[in-house]
Amino acid sequence: MEKREELYRGKAKTVYLTDDSEKLILEFRNDTSAFDGEKIEQLDRKGEVNNKFNHFIMTKLEEAGISTQVEALLSDTDSLVKKLDMIPVECVVRNVAAGSLVRRLGVEEGLMLNDKPIFEFFLKNDALHDPMVNDYHITAFGWATEAQIAEMKRLTFAVNDVLKALFDEGGMILVDYKLEFGLDADGNIILGDEFSPDGCRLWDKETRKKMDKDRFRQGLGSVVETYIEVAERLGLTL
Amino acid sequence: MEKREELYRGKAKTVYLTDDSEKLILEFRNDTSAFDGEKIEQLDRKGEVNNKFNHFIMTKLEEAGISTQVEALLSDTDSLVKKLDMIPVECVVRNVAAGSLVRRLGVEEGLMLNDKPIFEFFLKNDALHDPMVNDYHITAFGWATEAQIAEMKRLTFAVNDVLKALFDEGGMILVDYKLEFGLDADGNIILGDEFSPDGCRLWDKETRKKMDKDRFRQGLGSVVETYIEVAERLGLTL
Repeated sequence: MEKREELYRGKAKTVYLTDDSEKLILEFRNDTSAFDGEKIEQLDRKGEVNNKFNHFIMTKLEEAGISTQVEALLSDTDSLVKKLDMIPVECVVRNVAAGSLVRRLGVEEGLMLNDKPIFEFFLKNDALHDPMVNDYHITAFGWATEAQIAEMKRLTFAVNDVLKALFDEGGMILVDYKLEFGLDADGNIILGDEFSPDGCRLWDKETRKKMDKDRFRQGLGSVVETYIEVAERLGLTL
Repeated sequence: MEKREELYRGKAKTVYLTDDSEKLILEFRNDTSAFDGEKIEQLDRKGEVNNKFNHFIMTKLEEAGISTQVEALLSDTDSLVKKLDMIPVECVVRNVAAGSLVRRLGVEEGLMLNDKPIFEFFLKNDALHDPMVNDYHITAFGWATEAQIAEMKRLTFAVNDVLKALFDEGGMILVDYKLEFGLDADGNIILGDEFSPDGCRLWDKETRKKMDKDRFRQGLGSVVETYIEVAERLGLTL
């Protein structure tokens, strides 16, 4: 598979065209950003760790019957993926109250929502600071159909069942995470983007130690070292 | 009906107990506020106009089969209402893009959403600036059940059918509005609070003149005079 011109440069990944019009290459960079890109740093090995972590998680999800974009690990930092027409919303599930939920609704950080995980949609739009949206906004502005919304919710909760159990076995709580979906050439909803500690919150089950990008946001240090510990607890040696 | 002690003082209305434990009195004051109470003024006759306007609208809704809190007009500024256990969310319908929707999602003011009106829930909480919430937040935090959410949506859209037609006949566009619901002693969902130009946006169909509280928010003047014009166009002489 030949890597061709850059298609899109995001805050942490670059997307390249390939010689196959149906396939793209995702390059996971060391760039780490927070607060709408206000805080940006290069963290040694972060690209490699997230690339391999993402491949590991997506493989687990495929094994559980969830279709993902991932095709193959190409190198330390590159993965081959299916080309998708991305839906411009983020799907967030919260098993425990943290982050923006706490700030927006004034609830206590750490409040367990396990019986009733919360699902939220956010519009992917940096200039607007990724505002929360609902089903009505999404259909009114044509970002997705009602059927696509229902399928994104179904898949996001299916991912929750798989990953909550996986992280629990590794002694961690999957606090919250965001997923992004896209449409393949046949119009199927496929899990795209990435799943890594950059896009979720993970706490140690006993100590509540933060093991995700909050270490970077909050200046707690040992960011990549902790991501590696997360991987190792799940059985992935990096 | 005897007016007894004050139960609650809101930004524009005061609620009083009565000698009937199932009934309350709403007093519509001249206080007019915007921007979470940052801008507050007394507007002569506003309480009277909104009290009578609200009674007129609620009567139209009752005639259309929608249960409301309103029992009787008691005086220029007071209405007798059923006591409800209020649900702490606002239900917003948007037929045309304006206000916070425009700011949040960057869409153009005036964009017609008539085929797909947008429904939004906001938590009533001044300290948190009434954040937008969704069905999952509402059930997770116990503000309403799924069945109550479904009924609030059904009623809010039923109100839309009645009021869009009513304002259209008066040469006005019902741009958006908020409703609040509560539970009566039997657990039925009943329309509470008020419907007045303070809680909706109304534009002249031809000139797009603003005929609602945006006149106050934006310092356009003739606030109460315009509310009276709205009432008169609907056949209510004040």
